[in-house]
Amino acid sequence: MQSIPGNQVLDAEGLDAADPLRSMRDQFELPEGVIYLNGNSLGPLPRATKARMAEVVEQEWGAGLIRSWNNAGWVDLPQRIGSMIAPLVGAESDEVIVADSTSVNLFKLIHAGLKLNAGRTKVVTELGNFPTDLYVLQGVERDTAIKLCAVPREQILDVIDEDTALVVLTHVHYKSGEMFDLKAVTDLAHSVGALILWDLSHSTGAVPVALSAAGVDLALGCGYKYLNGGPGAPSFLYVAKRHQDHFEQPLTGWFGHAQPFAMSDQFEPAVGMTRALCGTPPVLGCVALEEGVRLVREVDMAEVRRKSIALSEFFIEQVETRLIQFGFELASPRESDRRGSQISLRHPEAYPIMQALIAAGVIGDFRAPDILRFGFAPLYTRFVDVEQAVCQLEHVMLSQGWRDPQFQVRAAVT
Amino acid sequence: MQSIPGNQVLDAEGLDAADPLRSMRDQFELPEGVIYLNGNSLGPLPRATKARMAEVVEQEWGAGLIRSWNNAGWVDLPQRIGSMIAPLVGAESDEVIVADSTSVNLFKLIHAGLKLNAGRTKVVTELGNFPTDLYVLQGVERDTAIKLCAVPREQILDVIDEDTALVVLTHVHYKSGEMFDLKAVTDLAHSVGALILWDLSHSTGAVPVALSAAGVDLALGCGYKYLNGGPGAPSFLYVAKRHQDHFEQPLTGWFGHAQPFAMSDQFEPAVGMTRALCGTPPVLGCVALEEGVRLVREVDMAEVRRKSIALSEFFIEQVETRLIQFGFELASPRESDRRGSQISLRHPEAYPIMQALIAAGVIGDFRAPDILRFGFAPLYTRFVDVEQAVCQLEHVMLSQGWRDPQFQVRAAVT
Repeated sequence: MQSIPGNQVLDAEGLDAADPLRSMRDQFELPEGVIYLNGNSLGPLPRATKARMAEVVEQEWGAGLIRSWNNAGWVDLPQRIGSMIAPLVGAESDEVIVADSTSVNLFKLIHAGLKLNAGRTKVVTELGNFPTDLYVLQGVERDTAIKLCAVPREQILDVIDEDTALVVLTHVHYKSGEMFDLKAVTDLAHSVGALILWDLSHSTGAVPVALSAAGVDLALGCGYKYLNGGPGAPSFLYVAKRHQDHFEQPLTGWFGHAQPFAMSDQFEPAVGMTRALCGTPPVLGCVALEEGVRLVREVDMAEVRRKSIALSEFFIEQVETRLIQFGFELASPRESDRRGSQISLRHPEAYPIMQALIAAGVIGDFRAPDILRFGFAPLYTRFVDVEQAVCQLEHVMLSQGWRDPQFQVRAAVT
Repeated sequence: MQSIPGNQVLDAEGLDAADPLRSMRDQFELPEGVIYLNGNSLGPLPRATKARMAEVVEQEWGAGLIRSWNNAGWVDLPQRIGSMIAPLVGAESDEVIVADSTSVNLFKLIHAGLKLNAGRTKVVTELGNFPTDLYVLQGVERDTAIKLCAVPREQILDVIDEDTALVVLTHVHYKSGEMFDLKAVTDLAHSVGALILWDLSHSTGAVPVALSAAGVDLALGCGYKYLNGGPGAPSFLYVAKRHQDHFEQPLTGWFGHAQPFAMSDQFEPAVGMTRALCGTPPVLGCVALEEGVRLVREVDMAEVRRKSIALSEFFIEQVETRLIQFGFELASPRESDRRGSQISLRHPEAYPIMQALIAAGVIGDFRAPDILRFGFAPLYTRFVDVEQAVCQLEHVMLSQGWRDPQFQVRAAVT
């Protein structure tokens, strides 16, 4: 039960009935018998994507063949989808482009950021950041003169100093769901002359982000989580307009050239975000991402955030009422303005418990060593889903099937 | 007409009837009324891909959701497709992996090659190489201590010397179709202690390649040309087994980690080719590529090569008989063992002529300033297609519609 303004108390059905986003769920293909709370890892299939993928495969590729690079607009997909994502992160349409994977784009932006702040060598990041962020930074440290300073969250603000070239942080933490104050940290970095690169993978499409208003320098995000772009969807990257003329990234492939089809021998970077491209765009992945982004653009991000908080609060209330007795602890911040759109619980037996919960049709996920993650994607998650998920988790704890060694062996190999 | 052993003379229909690969054409979706001679740029849609893409979208993503990373084997796609490509390039199954774009993989292999041959700084390549090869090398030169030595083809062998760390060449030239003697150039490089990186984008699936037998160090290729993997398909890369333990590439993302889902803070490269991965694999693109590769594996590459040469010779004979009078010149080598699977013609009015030919249903392409390219992909190109293409080109030259200034204006904007 949850109080809403006017002191009404609504149950899950009542909250769903009052949800202004409730019609969006019909736009997704969600399998029967499954409660999907893992859209923070892989968003589900939008209905429109099914038909659009058949069209791009059969009509554009099959019938159009090479002509579709121009006739079907394949050649502009990176810019077109970038401009569609831009308002979701508070950027101008020519500040965002779609390309490659998040990890590859991280590499580009880290190198570009170091050049934009040449002379400084320290790069600050968080221990326990999403692994690929740390790994890409460690690769850059191995191969260049930078000094990586990876510290626990509570020390980050203290180590950003006048030696710092670049701060690389993830806005919403993949494991805990904890959210940085994007504007405050950006301001702090700028106050000592550091640049900032935000990884928005766990924010975009679920949490409003205002890159321009916060004066952010560089950012990037993931296409396959809350943007519902499909497994391994291309990523997007953002460079503030004031940096674009001086933006120089190391992966100088032909799609980043000012005139790729002039086929000249000499690289000349394109104007604007196009120079962030490298190779030929992955058309099938781009087309699926475009459909996912189109859906998110239909809704008001402020409304999305309100529902995300309401779903999360509803979940926490249910957990506190029905699950604390089983040894669960909240691993996400209790204050809603310090969280993204997921709630993580801690339990020493998290792995087999999550396996049992998935077997019961509630899909969250496990993160080592002891975290159960539940994502609340406001476009398709209902309050009744949250209620049933807690109900199933309670049932799992009472039935204790996950304690069976045979279940644990089976779970470990799947 | 072409002579075949036994002194029979066969026309196009006879050659098609005698073609041992003729049944493969039925495995592709080729639109009515089109003669497609551009598979060297984008391979057509395999029939099986249509159904497989619907399956991955609707069943694996739609119904399977996040579970498909394990249950549908998404997590192994890079290794699985790599091992399928390996025999097509004469490599062992654990020497090839699928990842990213060709341009991104070039960047990885150039840096890795320089580390494998540390102490030397000269990198040799060809002026007029495919642009992205030159551009990626120029980016590396800008950002590191290497000295790029890009010379015309006839000087390449002379400039490979004991200062040379790495030779980066494209096996079959994108514009002329000219083919290097892969073994001879590899041997020459090795004789002075240089390593070699071959770009097989215009070879793989059309020309037999024997990487292991030639002792090649590093190689990569394109998924969307003769492998028919779809627009912007992922690329593949090869590292000879003897180099894999020392292979270190700069894009150290989480999928290159020894244990990506342990989510540790410290990068530790995976054993073998997996360390060449960076971010999350592009599943939709990988699945389409897998289907394309599956088709090429059904045929004997020696048979493919025989037909490729027969198609090309048949085309050249027809051109020499019927088109020389219109001012066309052969821009590819006349000797079949010095060519890949495309023939290029030179003509001062190449651009409007190719536009008129495409309008007439024969799809080749134009490369600035004066080249018309025709790709002969043996899996689906028939001798009658070649004959009709020449017939249409003759018709285009006789009708002269492409000289009409209005046609040229229309062609320039499409």
